[in-house]
Amino acid sequence: MADVERYVTGERERYLEELQEFLRIPSISALPEHRPDVDRAAQWVAEALRRAGVPRVEVFPLEGGKGHPVVYGEWTADPAKPTYLIYGHYDVQPVDPVELWTSPPFEPQEREGRLYARGATDDKGCLFEAIKGVEALGRLRGAPPVNVTFLVEGEEEIGSPNLAAFMREHQDLLRCDLALSADGEMLSPDQGCLTIASRGLAACQIDVYGANRDLHSGSFGGAVANPLHALAQIVAGLHTPDGKVAVPGFYEAVRPLSPEERRDLASTPFDEKAWLAAIGVAEPFGEPGYSTLERLGARPTLEINGMWGGFQGEGTKTVLPAEAHTKITCRLVPDQDPDRILDQVEAHVRAQRVPGVRVEVRRFAGSARPYAMPVDHPALAAAARVLERLYGKPAPTARMGGTVPVAEFFRSILGTWFLYYSFGDPDTRVHAPDEFIRIDSIPRAVKGYYLLLEALAGSAGAR
Amino acid sequence: MADVERYVTGERERYLEELQEFLRIPSISALPEHRPDVDRAAQWVAEALRRAGVPRVEVFPLEGGKGHPVVYGEWTADPAKPTYLIYGHYDVQPVDPVELWTSPPFEPQEREGRLYARGATDDKGCLFEAIKGVEALGRLRGAPPVNVTFLVEGEEEIGSPNLAAFMREHQDLLRCDLALSADGEMLSPDQGCLTIASRGLAACQIDVYGANRDLHSGSFGGAVANPLHALAQIVAGLHTPDGKVAVPGFYEAVRPLSPEERRDLASTPFDEKAWLAAIGVAEPFGEPGYSTLERLGARPTLEINGMWGGFQGEGTKTVLPAEAHTKITCRLVPDQDPDRILDQVEAHVRAQRVPGVRVEVRRFAGSARPYAMPVDHPALAAAARVLERLYGKPAPTARMGGTVPVAEFFRSILGTWFLYYSFGDPDTRVHAPDEFIRIDSIPRAVKGYYLLLEALAGSAGAR
Repeated sequence: MADVERYVTGERERYLEELQEFLRIPSISALPEHRPDVDRAAQWVAEALRRAGVPRVEVFPLEGGKGHPVVYGEWTADPAKPTYLIYGHYDVQPVDPVELWTSPPFEPQEREGRLYARGATDDKGCLFEAIKGVEALGRLRGAPPVNVTFLVEGEEEIGSPNLAAFMREHQDLLRCDLALSADGEMLSPDQGCLTIASRGLAACQIDVYGANRDLHSGSFGGAVANPLHALAQIVAGLHTPDGKVAVPGFYEAVRPLSPEERRDLASTPFDEKAWLAAIGVAEPFGEPGYSTLERLGARPTLEINGMWGGFQGEGTKTVLPAEAHTKITCRLVPDQDPDRILDQVEAHVRAQRVPGVRVEVRRFAGSARPYAMPVDHPALAAAARVLERLYGKPAPTARMGGTVPVAEFFRSILGTWFLYYSFGDPDTRVHAPDEFIRIDSIPRAVKGYYLLLEALAGSAGAR
Repeated sequence: MADVERYVTGERERYLEELQEFLRIPSISALPEHRPDVDRAAQWVAEALRRAGVPRVEVFPLEGGKGHPVVYGEWTADPAKPTYLIYGHYDVQPVDPVELWTSPPFEPQEREGRLYARGATDDKGCLFEAIKGVEALGRLRGAPPVNVTFLVEGEEEIGSPNLAAFMREHQDLLRCDLALSADGEMLSPDQGCLTIASRGLAACQIDVYGANRDLHSGSFGGAVANPLHALAQIVAGLHTPDGKVAVPGFYEAVRPLSPEERRDLASTPFDEKAWLAAIGVAEPFGEPGYSTLERLGARPTLEINGMWGGFQGEGTKTVLPAEAHTKITCRLVPDQDPDRILDQVEAHVRAQRVPGVRVEVRRFAGSARPYAMPVDHPALAAAARVLERLYGKPAPTARMGGTVPVAEFFRSILGTWFLYYSFGDPDTRVHAPDEFIRIDSIPRAVKGYYLLLEALAGSAGAR
């Protein structure tokens, strides 16, 4: 412990310089004009892995070169020992609105102990910390105490469209005892947490069609169905007034929270008042009988993301519109299945039989299954001990409201669990202007990987 | 009768030439760049009235010259006789999409017995017929058999914003026994009708506000209220599922239809199947217990004209929007009051108390009171007789679904009734590309005014 502490403190300046080099590459995966930059970032990661001592490093083109490459690294210290895979990504979000950045997003700038740049936390910074953790093990011990592999993708910010196929094709390379995610966040800058679950996703659109053209509301209003009335009725029917999803069967596959899980979530530090104040909302609202943290992490939702039809300009237009639309996403929890949920939503919509209009339900790609780790997984206990040492406070479990499709890829394709073990601070403006990373948090996170891999070597492993 | 028939037939070519001159003036009141054209059209009307023999003609600037002028004409044949005021307008709708016109909208073209141009029917053609009817009375009888005044405005297509003020200011000039509207339509090219009512209008917008910004549906969904859910609930609550307006008190002031009025409406020729087929709708839908014609003309409505919030693009965006909006117009029938109706809508919306959001109701200007004439008004009987003579078929009564604010201005400001007596054919594409008038219908309509004013002179008048 004294060794690694002294070591990472001594490397601080080098870490900062290397990370800045990584952050200067504008690897925006969503924008075709940045393709050479995305490629450059992949090469940078490969080089960083080699520098860290990883003996086998390969860059795999995806989709015949049309996708952004996967960087694979493998350090087999002893074939008899367990293997831990570290997942991360080197691509970043676009920078718009660029005028809201205090300094240019790809010219990292240090201000008051923070380094500002796009990707500083998500995910270049967090990935960098994981690589440096493995590097530290090599420098201080000659090799990691377990086998380590890396899977670093360049398409996370565009929904990882080719990753599942890559994982299916390269199961031999990726086989591991546990995957560690270097993408994610801790509870606060002062406290770690163990994210044990992320929600799944199912998306669709409801289209309601009436007449063959927009009608004059004076000449037709009151005598033919209005698609906007029909849509409002359909949408209102998706929830009970008190906030439960009203789709029959929606909750049937939901694994109920055990009293222990509820106690656990209740003990997570969470300032609900501050959380509401930050978004300007007076009171929470959701499924009756559950706390806000339960509603966010452990219960499924059905949210309307958009709704539109007819006139949206200033003042009045007396139109009876020909069509009306709404977009829906459901966040799912174990053991809900996205296809089954969309079947149920569609059946419920059709059952409403609103007269005089035609109703269509379209499903969107991008479904993801929910993910949750068993709370008694030994790696969780090991990680909890490391986090408590690092932060000086116990690390509660947490459940992510959002969706990380890759978590479930590991489960379903490789049969392995996926441990969120990433040191992003939750206030670092990821995906937004002025993204940053706290410079002092970097050596701590490097130590975090060092200590966890050590601890996992000491435990029975995770088989 | 023989005289006037021979006369109007003989004038056919002159009518056509003069009307084409009128139609060549692009008097689009909505477009500021056409202001000189609108002025020119006002002068054209003034000149046409003088040519028709009207002794006093004046052009009144509106709103200190910022509005489009009113053309006033007065032919006092005998102060002891009743006075009939003819209302019409010389401004026209814009021509977009101009590429859909077969010939340029302000270069009138004759094709297959029709004259194509913007305003050919609405309202230059119909106004022209009224002026020519009075002209014919002068030419054949020296003077009209009653006193006739003209009120011709240039702002009808922009909602007559200054007309009520003008009417209040000039009550002395406008005092009359009955107003005749040269703006409106008949049942079909082959059959006249007596439009005895038009609906009123009340308009508002509902705005629903949640968080202070759009939220991530994964990080917040299910735990704070979604303005789109709240709006759907509010909008769905405005009607019962079977199509009645659910706002308490909404129907309380509605004058019930008498059995005679219902019989009357039921006898109006109306091909519901063809009407539905034209708009591509399979079945009618509306307030239970009423026919389509009753729903359109004699019952009030509440229609959603627009609704929007959140993401409207392609695919999925996992947003929980900060706000949601909807626009509403109600069509009103006697004796509903627009302000009272908006009070009731607002009270009903507020009574729903959807949790977690802030709801605002904004009222729009442009309210109009409903209008209906007593069915036993003697002028209706006189007009019915003239129309039966002209078309060779009885003229049923009809109720307009739309709103003509000026109808109620005459009632409330001048205390006079407003008789829809305009010869527009309902299929002439008013407000749309390729507007036209049937050339043969012009002499018939001129004769229509001639005969009605003669008939009204013979009756006891309409005091």
